Amino acid sequence: MTAYRAPLEDIRFVLSEIVALERLAALPGLEDATADVIVQVLEEAARLAETVLAPLNASGDREGCRLTDGRVTMPAGFREAYARYAAGGWAGVAADPAHGGGGLPALVNQMVDELIISANIAFSTVPGLSHGAYHAIDLYGSAAQKALYLPKLASGIWTGTMCLTEPQCGTDLGLVRTRAVPAADGSYHLTGNKVWITAAEHDLAENIVHLVLARLPDAPAGTRGISLFVAAKHLPEADRAGGWRPGARNAITCTGLEHKMGLAASPTCALAFEGATAWLVGEPHRGMRAMFAMMNQARLMVGMQGLGLAEMAWQAARAFAGERRQGRLPGQPESDGPQPIIVHGDVRRMLATIRAQVEGTRALALWVGQHVDIALRHPDPAARAAADDLVALMTPIVKAHLTDIGQEAADLAIQVHGGSGYVREMGVEQYLRDIRIARIYEGTNGIQALDLVGRKMPDGMGRRLRRLFHPMAAFVEETRPLAADDPALAAILEPFATWLARAQGISLHLGQAAFADPIAATTGAHDYLKLLGILATGWMWARMALAAHRRLAAGEQNPMLAAKLASARFYMTHILPGIGPHATAILAGPDSVPEVGSLTA
Amino acid sequence: MTAYRAPLEDIRFVLSEIVALERLAALPGLEDATADVIVQVLEEAARLAETVLAPLNASGDREGCRLTDGRVTMPAGFREAYARYAAGGWAGVAADPAHGGGGLPALVNQMVDELIISANIAFSTVPGLSHGAYHAIDLYGSAAQKALYLPKLASGIWTGTMCLTEPQCGTDLGLVRTRAVPAADGSYHLTGNKVWITAAEHDLAENIVHLVLARLPDAPAGTRGISLFVAAKHLPEADRAGGWRPGARNAITCTGLEHKMGLAASPTCALAFEGATAWLVGEPHRGMRAMFAMMNQARLMVGMQGLGLAEMAWQAARAFAGERRQGRLPGQPESDGPQPIIVHGDVRRMLATIRAQVEGTRALALWVGQHVDIALRHPDPAARAAADDLVALMTPIVKAHLTDIGQEAADLAIQVHGGSGYVREMGVEQYLRDIRIARIYEGTNGIQALDLVGRKMPDGMGRRLRRLFHPMAAFVEETRPLAADDPALAAILEPFATWLARAQGISLHLGQAAFADPIAATTGAHDYLKLLGILATGWMWARMALAAHRRLAAGEQNPMLAAKLASARFYMTHILPGIGPHATAILAGPDSVPEVGSLTA
Repeated sequence: MTAYRAPLEDIRFVLSEIVALERLAALPGLEDATADVIVQVLEEAARLAETVLAPLNASGDREGCRLTDGRVTMPAGFREAYARYAAGGWAGVAADPAHGGGGLPALVNQMVDELIISANIAFSTVPGLSHGAYHAIDLYGSAAQKALYLPKLASGIWTGTMCLTEPQCGTDLGLVRTRAVPAADGSYHLTGNKVWITAAEHDLAENIVHLVLARLPDAPAGTRGISLFVAAKHLPEADRAGGWRPGARNAITCTGLEHKMGLAASPTCALAFEGATAWLVGEPHRGMRAMFAMMNQARLMVGMQGLGLAEMAWQAARAFAGERRQGRLPGQPESDGPQPIIVHGDVRRMLATIRAQVEGTRALALWVGQHVDIALRHPDPAARAAADDLVALMTPIVKAHLTDIGQEAADLAIQVHGGSGYVREMGVEQYLRDIRIARIYEGTNGIQALDLVGRKMPDGMGRRLRRLFHPMAAFVEETRPLAADDPALAAILEPFATWLARAQGISLHLGQAAFADPIAATTGAHDYLKLLGILATGWMWARMALAAHRRLAAGEQNPMLAAKLASARFYMTHILPGIGPHATAILAGPDSVPEVGSLTA
Repeated sequence: MTAYRAPLEDIRFVLSEIVALERLAALPGLEDATADVIVQVLEEAARLAETVLAPLNASGDREGCRLTDGRVTMPAGFREAYARYAAGGWAGVAADPAHGGGGLPALVNQMVDELIISANIAFSTVPGLSHGAYHAIDLYGSAAQKALYLPKLASGIWTGTMCLTEPQCGTDLGLVRTRAVPAADGSYHLTGNKVWITAAEHDLAENIVHLVLARLPDAPAGTRGISLFVAAKHLPEADRAGGWRPGARNAITCTGLEHKMGLAASPTCALAFEGATAWLVGEPHRGMRAMFAMMNQARLMVGMQGLGLAEMAWQAARAFAGERRQGRLPGQPESDGPQPIIVHGDVRRMLATIRAQVEGTRALALWVGQHVDIALRHPDPAARAAADDLVALMTPIVKAHLTDIGQEAADLAIQVHGGSGYVREMGVEQYLRDIRIARIYEGTNGIQALDLVGRKMPDGMGRRLRRLFHPMAAFVEETRPLAADDPALAAILEPFATWLARAQGISLHLGQAAFADPIAATTGAHDYLKLLGILATGWMWARMALAAHRRLAAGEQNPMLAAKLASARFYMTHILPGIGPHATAILAGPDSVPEVGSLTA
């Protein structure tokens, strides 16, 4: 089993070449977030991930979670690991210092997430939704709610959940039935059943804060009648120091644990609310707005799950391919014995695919991530709006494309391992089982595509889309002279320019088609999301190749730089052309997809 | 959980429109294999699959196999099911009547395999390799060996295995170390360890016949020093009736069972041969030839595993999509409540993808399968040679492309199910876990691609390839007038003609490049196999569309015919263009794939 090593050198490359760290440190409140501080934080996170969390990944999968009398016991070692996670301040890296947080950029939290996910994705899910709960209360909660819950969540002493799904409603939240009845003291009593709630019951933290979608008695039907409530496992009780401690058990029971394909050490719970005491968060009937605030954070994090597993798959596949000896290159004498399988062309192709996807999508995710901070903190409202547009556009792409990539990488890692990849003790098949859910939860990847094409693309007649295409087009213009002078650079820059032009044409076509016939947006959405995901990652590769070229030309001796150029060439020839079939499918239009009657014939 | 229903109507469509059944029945020895007989056999196989095997699929996965004191206990119900399988004559459907077989075409065996695999792939693996063992002994065994083993295998009273892999050698059989020492009585003593042997120990049959690769004392190194031996779990002992019964235990011990991602009810065994008594099959040092005879049979069967699981995935995904209600089409009022998810464009896209792949690759597999019978039995040596060329060319494509499709379909079925697809009780995630090994065993799909590009393509300067391209080109010529007259047909036929021309150009390019530099064949092999797989399936869709069009024009009332046309349109617009990126990758050449030094930088 391959030991995880945090890819700090690659992250530093992205921070120096793709992310404008100096822009981040210039934002109000982030003055202390210098490159040195950030690197130091990442090195500490790497130690936690490598030495505490990674060693529990396989054992957690084998042991799983157990539900006994409504209590969930986590696998051996998880309590101690969580205690170190909380004590290290990792739950609140980017939380407000006023609430006990670290006050670092959201980008740092995102990078830390990658390391923790690679090491132990199941562990990462337990505190994973605390960020969304923190964010929702921070945005919509009352001053009292913030004072109570935010320090608990930022310290990791309590964890948070998002309780949306019910047996009859997953994607379609308009069907939520959980009822909220006002009590005399201003609280509410929640009654209903929620399912597939990640970490809704566990023994890692002293309390669990549930953010719950439910209907008030006078609620209109559908999504316009949903409100957000906060309900804790233990009712918060004032302590003598003016703080809060867990009091009596609330009327919330964990009634079941899902038996899943993977993520065995992540408790996926069914919860029964039986008149549970809760408080309204924000305005009545405006729960969907708050839900989306949580959900958008969660979607970026799920994208990082894809990246984190892809990185682990890369490390495992590369290590195995360098060790396993089997076969020989054409022309090598049989008497020399077998060579490491990494010499074989098809194995190199598989490894190159994983690496180009991992490093390209890491650059993409962190590039998007810095805009989260800009959107939150930039003093200029126009700059905030522009960054917010970009985050809104790219969130479904990061969620869906990166989880696709994570699964593809995990699958290729199995293939590189051959038969060993299929047996449990090697640990590789776990990556595929664990990541498979990421393309489904927090909105299936099909829903992400509909969000992109149905909401994000048409907004402001394509305003958000232009936030992506304009800098891409400017990049092509700026780099055209370089490509003209250097065939090696041209081989990287020209395919990007060609596919960008094609993607712009397809965008115009799909925008018009969807305007005329909304069904066109639903049949073409998946292909359009993939097209933009592949293209945006290609842009990252073009930019990373230029940076590597420049540093090599300046005399820097670092084998990573030549490797970046090789990966960029591979991406442009082997992955970027994958845009083609998606473009053809979009152009074929909605009539090319069989009707319901045909599919049930 | 979706109940399996054998897709007999679709199989009948393929038999009438793609497979020339009358050509098969005209072959010597197959006079009785009329369409009526074949359909009756399939109906019986469907009953076995639907009522006996399918109900044990999920329970077999939960229970798995157990190894105790060297004995493997199969899951509950498997013994009774195997008894019915053997009593029904299914082990020897296509075996020689002289050895107690059914004497039907190999094609019938292949179709029966599909049904059994869909119902319970783990069960299917136990007798699955008996066919390869039968075939190897039939081709290379002595008369005495044939008389002893073939009736036992054809009746299913004994099962067979292929013992190739050792801990240090999977793909690279030149590294086999198992030793064979001659004994005074003409037998040999085998000593060595074999791993990943499917069904090498189980309690379904009274004896197990191992075909084992090993080295004689005077063997040259590498693959030219490997011989084939037969060694049974129980030494065969003559009975009073002149037959054979299982005698004393041979010195063969099952020392381990793999704990796998899936196929839990298929025992994957480690075997220790400790001076086991064995007999040489065929000539000394010619074991690789016999191994390939077994292996080619096994590879077509593994391709059918891909198809069988894809069919099951299709049935489950379609059923769920028709039942689960969630969301509404644009323009539907919220007050009407949710619609079945099959109405949504992206769900239809996923279902259409699975169906087009399942039905297209079924046609392809059966079209190849009929050539197995022609190659075996045709009175004209030229016709036999032509059919053999086609089978040799298409075997790696059927193995690799169909297993890719099987996994893709299983994965899409999970996606259609959303969260339900990830929980074990729904049964869908099992399809993905079960099929994942099929892209690895019996030669990884990368090895299939190398076999295609390194051996099958260059043979006779492309003679085998022309066996595929010539009839495709003739089809395009013949149908050109139809396309000119009918835009609906043109929309199906023209894309095929375009991509065929492109594929022919790429073939020429790759053939020349590989001739000049064998590394080009290794880096381009995967893409070339995929290109041919997608193209050949596209040809099947063009042919099926024409047949459906003709039958509709003749007034036939059958909704399946319109569905075939819709699937063909979908294939041409959404799947066939997938050739494009593979072509680009091949044209980019070996320099586009990073070198070893770059991948380890």
